[in-house]
Amino acid sequence: MPLYMDIHKKVEGATADAVADAHIKDLESQGQYGVKYLKYWLDENSGTIFCLVEAPDKESAMRVHREAHGLVADEIHEVSEFS
Amino acid sequence: MPLYMDIHKKVEGATADAVADAHIKDLESQGQYGVKYLKYWLDENSGTIFCLVEAPDKESAMRVHREAHGLVADEIHEVSEFS
Repeated sequence: MPLYMDIHKKVEGATADAVADAHIKDLESQGQYGVKYLKYWLDENSGTIFCLVEAPDKESAMRVHREAHGLVADEIHEVSEFS
Repeated sequence: MPLYMDIHKKVEGATADAVADAHIKDLESQGQYGVKYLKYWLDENSGTIFCLVEAPDKESAMRVHREAHGLVADEIHEVSEFS
């Protein structure tokens, strides 16, 4: 399944607790669209959030965010992971 | 140790092979600065690269990129990781 990294920029009130709440909503909503939010990274100072997500396509990944809590990413990139 | 996510944007010639070569140079250079490049994600279409790195500070992480291959990130964010 394709892998995507999205970026949310300058999110107001992006505390660890608030983002954890939104993430739980993603997890509750994602199954019906075949989406799997895997991890996220939060920079509380700048309100930047990076989400790593497996999804059938870009639109499905964004749809989960939109329907779960409305916080849609500013960018989403199909990526390959390397280490 | 602090964790950072950096972003390289619109990198010319960012093929998987080219980025893998640059990453090997990071790994060779990072030890002297106490830096550990952990993973990266590449979007070949847009030339976007996300690097996840542990470092004593932001400047040390950037210094490794600069000295290893000269491709310095456009942004770097101190982040916390959640899953």
